Amino acid sequence: MPAFSRFTPLAESLPPTVPFVGPETQERARGARFIARLGANESGFGPAPSVIEAIEREAGLSWRYADPENHELRGRLAAHLGLAPERVVVGEGIDGLLGLLVRLIVEPGTPVVTSLGAYPTFNFHVTGFGGRLVPVPYRDDHEDLDGLLEAVKRENAPLVYLSNPDNPMGTWHEAAAITAFARALPETTMLVLDEAYGETAPSSAIPDIDTLAGMPNVLRFRTFSKAYGLAGQRIGYVFGVEETVSRFHRVRNHFGVNRLGQVAALAALEDQAWLGHAIAQIVASRDQIADIARGHGFKPIPSATNFVTIDCGGDGARARTILDGLVSRGVFIRMPGVETLNRCIRISTGPEAEIDIFEQALVEVAAELD
Amino acid sequence: MPAFSRFTPLAESLPPTVPFVGPETQERARGARFIARLGANESGFGPAPSVIEAIEREAGLSWRYADPENHELRGRLAAHLGLAPERVVVGEGIDGLLGLLVRLIVEPGTPVVTSLGAYPTFNFHVTGFGGRLVPVPYRDDHEDLDGLLEAVKRENAPLVYLSNPDNPMGTWHEAAAITAFARALPETTMLVLDEAYGETAPSSAIPDIDTLAGMPNVLRFRTFSKAYGLAGQRIGYVFGVEETVSRFHRVRNHFGVNRLGQVAALAALEDQAWLGHAIAQIVASRDQIADIARGHGFKPIPSATNFVTIDCGGDGARARTILDGLVSRGVFIRMPGVETLNRCIRISTGPEAEIDIFEQALVEVAAELD
Repeated sequence: MPAFSRFTPLAESLPPTVPFVGPETQERARGARFIARLGANESGFGPAPSVIEAIEREAGLSWRYADPENHELRGRLAAHLGLAPERVVVGEGIDGLLGLLVRLIVEPGTPVVTSLGAYPTFNFHVTGFGGRLVPVPYRDDHEDLDGLLEAVKRENAPLVYLSNPDNPMGTWHEAAAITAFARALPETTMLVLDEAYGETAPSSAIPDIDTLAGMPNVLRFRTFSKAYGLAGQRIGYVFGVEETVSRFHRVRNHFGVNRLGQVAALAALEDQAWLGHAIAQIVASRDQIADIARGHGFKPIPSATNFVTIDCGGDGARARTILDGLVSRGVFIRMPGVETLNRCIRISTGPEAEIDIFEQALVEVAAELD
Repeated sequence: MPAFSRFTPLAESLPPTVPFVGPETQERARGARFIARLGANESGFGPAPSVIEAIEREAGLSWRYADPENHELRGRLAAHLGLAPERVVVGEGIDGLLGLLVRLIVEPGTPVVTSLGAYPTFNFHVTGFGGRLVPVPYRDDHEDLDGLLEAVKRENAPLVYLSNPDNPMGTWHEAAAITAFARALPETTMLVLDEAYGETAPSSAIPDIDTLAGMPNVLRFRTFSKAYGLAGQRIGYVFGVEETVSRFHRVRNHFGVNRLGQVAALAALEDQAWLGHAIAQIVASRDQIADIARGHGFKPIPSATNFVTIDCGGDGARARTILDGLVSRGVFIRMPGVETLNRCIRISTGPEAEIDIFEQALVEVAAELD
């Protein structure tokens, strides 16, 4: 059977690839469930009990569309950030918001600068709108700020992606370096500052809200998917200068943000005590994973995120062997996709019982290495 | 403060309008809550108790991303429809799926045929991707199949929108007419068949799955937002020929569908007994609204949906006066936006207590009319 014949040339040119294969897909292929779920940088420490209560309390109102202005959540986020509500937009995770931003800026052929091996979903959106990715290699396992700036200027790119802290390496730049980078950019280049892992970073790594707040070409993206433990609820947000942020309203799916997701996010934002507790658990788990890595002859890379990237001390094939060994033992993890980052595996923080399972499996896999 | 300067010319040309103003926005403007929520074609009969239980059971797993393949829900929907799973895609409501389809087919200037006064969110997407709307007036309060076909051929349009049953009029065409329309279309025109209200229509109005199943240029869209009572969960789906449907995977937000939403939809699909009960309530409520309209000198238009559109017997100004009178009394309803549909108001079915509130308010408003 042929497909419909009049999809756009751009649509027809796109590969059928998926940015990430989900663990459920791997479970179906394996014919068995994972016994440790440490690959997607979710938070196995879960959402706060107060959040679960809020979801249960509101479940019966699932028949209502959510407020398309997301008024209450935007207002509370704005107050939390110390910004006017008009400077915040809520979306279906950072992923959804990145797609909208790319749509607003990218046309076929538009150059877009990012780091080689950084967030595949951003790349998926750029490719999906016909943009031309200009990848800049990492330097010393960090996104290379000088290299990114140089590429932006060389290409006259209207868009550059930077995650701080970084995924998949877990590394970070200090706030002063991020601020200097933002200020050095041409005004005609939009900085996508992805701070999905901001809550678990040292405070010295995250620029004050005020520092970048006056720049029309800076948008900061945050999420309830990581430290807040609400990945399944798809609530991300973006903030910046009102005139820039308002452009999202022209293209966003106004009724697209799940009602219970907003309820959950509101409750999560309210419960900062629990967030502090979750962050402490993540930090402790990070230390535990690093200790395990060192204890078995591997080198953990210092992390400001809810995962630890471990240098396996060889090439991509060696790391892949280790990953395959862990996966075959029921431990879901992922690894970076490009050289030389792919000498590493990446372990999400999680409950101690799952970290123990990871360690046990790592011991077995390490014993099988040459 | 100026906005960022390099949004695309298309983005800069878009109006900041919103397809629908939410009732919450009106509540904030009024400074008071609505006492009857009968304007958004939600289902005040709620989701099934089994659905609420499923949500409560899974709330604690909100830390997990949903399966990006939506494997389980797709599989169950496919079984329910009698189709292969590869022929179904799940998305963030029909709204989200319509946006993706428009993106796959529409480029700046592409003509897109729809009915004048039909679904504004579809139009929002078409305009958002630079398409040129070709609106065909309703005929006798029905979408005009002959007129739509003529416009498609005249414009060589690659995309035509048809909702059956129709929103905002509640009218419908019989399955044979829909099938004849689909078959009369050029193969180079995609039919968007929006069946959001299919569950509440007479079965004679809905083409069998098999009848249209072999046509690469037909996509049927359905949702859990209406009869299933899950508008807030944002779960829609589309089905058609596999080769056509597969194009969604090239552009969709793979992790975009809320995890609890999928849990809720699965439970809802399972509970067909409850669905039958909900549909019976909707049909009874339809009859009740029609009786009320007639009883006070208005003319209800026969409906196959979860709402009743009422001809107020005058022009748009008269209907607007009635709507304003109802809204000012705390009754949230909506009305069609274009002549001559705008001689009507539109009342969603709902619990008897809310319909009673509507009647009481209507009596007061009618007494004030000339």
